Amino acid sequence: MIYLDHAATTPVDERVLEAMLPYFREQYGNPSSIHARGREAAKALRQARATVADILNCTPKEIIFTSCATESNNLALRGIAFAQRARGRGRHLVVSAVEHKAVLVTAKGLRDHYGFDLSIVPVDEYGRVSADDVAAALREDTILVSVMYANNEVGTVQPIAEIAALCRERGIPFHTDAVQAANYFSLDVEALGVDALSLSAHKFYGPKGVGVLYLRSGTPLWPQMTGGGQEHKRRAGTENVAGIVGLARALEIAQSTREEESARVRALRDRLIEGVLARVSDVYLTGHPTERLPNHASFVIRGLEIQGVLMGLDMAGVAASSGSACTSAAQEPSHVLTAMGIPHLDAVGHLRLTLGRETGAEEVARAVEALATVVARMEREGMRGG
Amino acid sequence: MIYLDHAATTPVDERVLEAMLPYFREQYGNPSSIHARGREAAKALRQARATVADILNCTPKEIIFTSCATESNNLALRGIAFAQRARGRGRHLVVSAVEHKAVLVTAKGLRDHYGFDLSIVPVDEYGRVSADDVAAALREDTILVSVMYANNEVGTVQPIAEIAALCRERGIPFHTDAVQAANYFSLDVEALGVDALSLSAHKFYGPKGVGVLYLRSGTPLWPQMTGGGQEHKRRAGTENVAGIVGLARALEIAQSTREEESARVRALRDRLIEGVLARVSDVYLTGHPTERLPNHASFVIRGLEIQGVLMGLDMAGVAASSGSACTSAAQEPSHVLTAMGIPHLDAVGHLRLTLGRETGAEEVARAVEALATVVARMEREGMRGG
Repeated sequence: MIYLDHAATTPVDERVLEAMLPYFREQYGNPSSIHARGREAAKALRQARATVADILNCTPKEIIFTSCATESNNLALRGIAFAQRARGRGRHLVVSAVEHKAVLVTAKGLRDHYGFDLSIVPVDEYGRVSADDVAAALREDTILVSVMYANNEVGTVQPIAEIAALCRERGIPFHTDAVQAANYFSLDVEALGVDALSLSAHKFYGPKGVGVLYLRSGTPLWPQMTGGGQEHKRRAGTENVAGIVGLARALEIAQSTREEESARVRALRDRLIEGVLARVSDVYLTGHPTERLPNHASFVIRGLEIQGVLMGLDMAGVAASSGSACTSAAQEPSHVLTAMGIPHLDAVGHLRLTLGRETGAEEVARAVEALATVVARMEREGMRGG
Repeated sequence: MIYLDHAATTPVDERVLEAMLPYFREQYGNPSSIHARGREAAKALRQARATVADILNCTPKEIIFTSCATESNNLALRGIAFAQRARGRGRHLVVSAVEHKAVLVTAKGLRDHYGFDLSIVPVDEYGRVSADDVAAALREDTILVSVMYANNEVGTVQPIAEIAALCRERGIPFHTDAVQAANYFSLDVEALGVDALSLSAHKFYGPKGVGVLYLRSGTPLWPQMTGGGQEHKRRAGTENVAGIVGLARALEIAQSTREEESARVRALRDRLIEGVLARVSDVYLTGHPTERLPNHASFVIRGLEIQGVLMGLDMAGVAASSGSACTSAAQEPSHVLTAMGIPHLDAVGHLRLTLGRETGAEEVARAVEALATVVARMEREGMRGG
């Protein structure tokens, strides 16, 4: 099988699984317990937190472990919004039109059900937000801005540092959903200038069910899960020790190899893009031509319902996707493609191919071949519209 | 080591870990993906959901997988409270005084920050809630009642079916935190008559980081994590497939052996209680003498700071605890012991010993011996007050 859906999820690295296993077995303590079993678990947690903090260039106290990036995004948005409003700082939120649904739906929920105001900043035809548009959306009562690091559906990378700088000038907390960035880009929160940043382990060869919210010290936050005093009272619940240990190990591996791996997959991705553009007719690249994730290729194949293409690829042993995996069951057109001005008739032909560690030149060549064959067969069978 | 802190957490059963491993490795797909890798993961999720639903005697759609019981409790309380209020049904909540903090702190948060009313029902000297007291607390505008199945700190079992019945009569949703009950009691939601029930895998020999909220069909709920459409739009976020598979396997094992295991640990627990009462002076049992968890022994040892006892036990190779593991770092007296009318001076001497699958007669005898030795040494050293 050729797996080209790394934006949806990645396999767990064997080194990561190995690091996790002791915490299912003999070191099963609850970190809140004061006996030896508990102290072992608490130590593992402390080490994992220190590892992640080192990578992000922050203090361990600024790391909040969560159950996934969706939780991190929800915690950042709801948590900061409620806390800021309670301090009388306003009720206005700003997000981009191409955020993951964990941000966009949550922001709209805050508007529709909890009395906040929301501005949604547009993107250009490549799915890119401009810092000027963010600046224009800011108001006196803006209490939070959230713009993703890189887009999951079309791969476009956003000018995060620039947006962070203009928020910083005005004293507005800035959050970024960095889920797709962790394998390839720096997560140095000082260099980026962000106040909050979300990660999910299963996107960087760690386990599902564990994530991070980095939160800059001093940023107000109302916890969204309350109870025990875990995570410095910002996220209650017994810690997923094995998962957290796995997350830290996975992030360590991903970040220590990101430069070589970026160069490697970028070359393969460019070959993939060239191959697809050369072998499939009436197709175009979606997302930014250069400012894009090194592992991310995405296209519109005009006049085709992509479901048929995906099934054909699946039967040929190629795992591909369309838009976000999180929304593939939904029938509505992708909000990302719509925001980019791609017409609905084109959007239904959206294909996403995302490379990963197991992807080599052979896999890329075979995927291009498989795609060309599937599309040609669909054309012969009259399944391609005008 | 003799581990007597099963109320805090349990080791993962090897059969559970074995069931999980494939979902870290080859079957790593995202259940939302439509290709083969995704479909395998979706199938595993479906099977796990069906297993849990069978055990709870409900439909698969009534099962919501979460990241832990704290999340389940928060989702039940906030989710039902906000949804009921939005439907104009009222703003009054009822909980017991001995709930886990995930319920109690969350209920107080709804009162203090979100405009709800809250009644906290008292307990008797054994930590038991009376259905009459719950009935007396109900109002025209009561929209949710939450009373735990069995108490984590003192082991007392609550009259859940009775409270559920009186809520049912009045059309008020009833939630129970069943975290401590899963190894020993029936979780049949029809027999219990509950509308919502929380579970946490790591309390029944499953992994940390995964839980369940059962929610009876028709019970209104506002999701607390929004984004993708997972869990029938009630809990967004990529599913923790390995964890969920592990949870289902662990629940299957726990529930299929619960009657024998209850009888086995009950006999050992009674021997433990007898031994402690015989060998340690000025000690008394806390919690209900008969209506208690079969694995749960808890005491007050008068005139001793329990921290010293716990450290002494730890050095002797016995892992024990005091009150809830979740609050052990806090210095304030346990809210559970306080609600039972236990004076603060006694509460600081609270000891919890909770048995589990690895506990045999030998472990119980050695634990009693170790406790008697530690207490005698502290007495000799003048560490026991009057």
